[in-house]
Amino acid sequence: MADPVTVGPEVFLAMGREVLAKQPFSVLIGAELAALSPGRCELHVPVSASVKQQHGFVHGGVVSYAADNALTYAGGTALRVPVVTSEFKINYLRPAIGERLIARAEAVHTGRSQAVCRCDVFVVLDGEEKLCAVAQGTIAALPASPAA
Amino acid sequence: MADPVTVGPEVFLAMGREVLAKQPFSVLIGAELAALSPGRCELHVPVSASVKQQHGFVHGGVVSYAADNALTYAGGTALRVPVVTSEFKINYLRPAIGERLIARAEAVHTGRSQAVCRCDVFVVLDGEEKLCAVAQGTIAALPASPAA
Amino acid sequence: MADPVTVGPEVFLAMGREVLAKQPFSVLIGAELAALSPGRCELHVPVSASVKQQHGFVHGGVVSYAADNALTYAGGTALRVPVVTSEFKINYLRPAIGERLIARAEAVHTGRSQAVCRCDVFVVLDGEEKLCAVAQGTIAALPASPAA
Amino acid sequence: MADPVTVGPEVFLAMGREVLAKQPFSVLIGAELAALSPGRCELHVPVSASVKQQHGFVHGGVVSYAADNALTYAGGTALRVPVVTSEFKINYLRPAIGERLIARAEAVHTGRSQAVCRCDVFVVLDGEEKLCAVAQGTIAALPASPAA
Repeated sequence: MADPVTVGPEVFLAMGREVLAKQPFSVLIGAELAALSPGRCELHVPVSASVKQQHGFVHGGVVSYAADNALTYAGGTALRVPVVTSEFKINYLRPAIGERLIARAEAVHTGRSQAVCRCDVFVVLDGEEKLCAVAQGTIAALPASPAA
Repeated sequence: MADPVTVGPEVFLAMGREVLAKQPFSVLIGAELAALSPGRCELHVPVSASVKQQHGFVHGGVVSYAADNALTYAGGTALRVPVVTSEFKINYLRPAIGERLIARAEAVHTGRSQAVCRCDVFVVLDGEEKLCAVAQGTIAALPASPAA
Repeated sequence: MADPVTVGPEVFLAMGREVLAKQPFSVLIGAELAALSPGRCELHVPVSASVKQQHGFVHGGVVSYAADNALTYAGGTALRVPVVTSEFKINYLRPAIGERLIARAEAVHTGRSQAVCRCDVFVVLDGEEKLCAVAQGTIAALPASPAA
Repeated sequence: MADPVTVGPEVFLAMGREVLAKQPFSVLIGAELAALSPGRCELHVPVSASVKQQHGFVHGGVVSYAADNALTYAGGTALRVPVVTSEFKINYLRPAIGERLIARAEAVHTGRSQAVCRCDVFVVLDGEEKLCAVAQGTIAALPASPAA
């Protein structure tokens, strides 16, 4: 990855979108990267019929996907190396009913090998954002490969 | 829901599969309910190209979906009332590389209004199961509706 | 408990301190309630030799105590009924080296029967606060007793 | 630390107790290491008046201390290097009323730099063990010091 310090915000976001476009699952559910900067991320998931559960709400698994992926972007851009999600925890606050999920994550602490991040997931209904889940997790740097 | 005590295991599983079939997101990713009994659930997700991320592993969001849904089935069948997932936590242990995810969940404590459950998620590669994530969470009974 | 709406901030804090004074464990480690308002709490633990572990840092169990208790106060004052902590999760960010722990918690969502809260734990060293742990958890209303 | 492979079980347990004896906070609340082997730990806390909260139950912070410390022993003996607790999550299942807490932890996955562990915390009342909390967390190897 090019050094994010030396690239402009638009290039940085474009790089992030390139990664997202290579995730077949993110493509499947239509996830969009709305904003990205070091240690911060905003990920959207438009609410289509296919991401719902039996009561018409967005499936919890989709809400947790949004949190997981936003946490990973926040941690990865904070650490500036290839990363994996080690773990996270999510509390669901209300049924996600609306047109769009917005997951906003930020790194609250960045160490040498991991970043701890928080994420708020909102659902947009009639243009109004409502907080529907909060998450917290650890993003870990991948060990350097021998050839690196 | 019919009283699970009075139905046989096959009917119980069939009822669980009916719920899964009504979740468009579960249908989208091809989830299958392999086993269900009060307080226990085994949920499978066949690994197709569309559930992967950019390195060819199953996307973490799919692993967390499997854990979330299995926890909910375990808690819902333990409580025997309509439920929602309140919260859960997941630790990813290794990249999920293989043909199938198997999430096995069980209720470890069932109270009046909530069940605390644990889940192990395995990935099957060449017929061998490997533990790839562990989860723990709370499944809550929905408040009784006034008309109930 | 008197209705917190009808009491002034000082009375509210005094009521919270009364509860803390009745917790022998909080007294044992010298915890102090520095601030309390509906949905918000600041709890301090002075760092004495007896709250440390073998390397001279504050023991993780004491950091988690501070988070747990601050979360409970935030949730309890948000819900305004007797409560218990259902669950929480904590990430330790750095060794807690200093003179005082400060745990600040707030309710991020308050429902009918539970509040979801977040907490930041700081350690004060030479007058400077450093974030040493972050937590997130669920505080649940106790079921009303039949006589209530 | 001597290689645990080359020492007998009694020596291993004695080494663990030596560490516990150096933790002032563990001494303060009277914690005892009842069993220790690679990846497994049993830690006890006798219930004295000083570990209680205002209703006479063991304070949640003490239950979380027991889980935290047991997780750390399980992870540390699995990894066989100096460790810290990165994070953990705990669900409280019932009020801890009794004479003794027993926290049993085990490593469920041990990698190169971290172990993921689970813990069950029981309270013993009239000789009977009751599960009162379950926890799950990550224990991380400390980075090797330059002189090592």
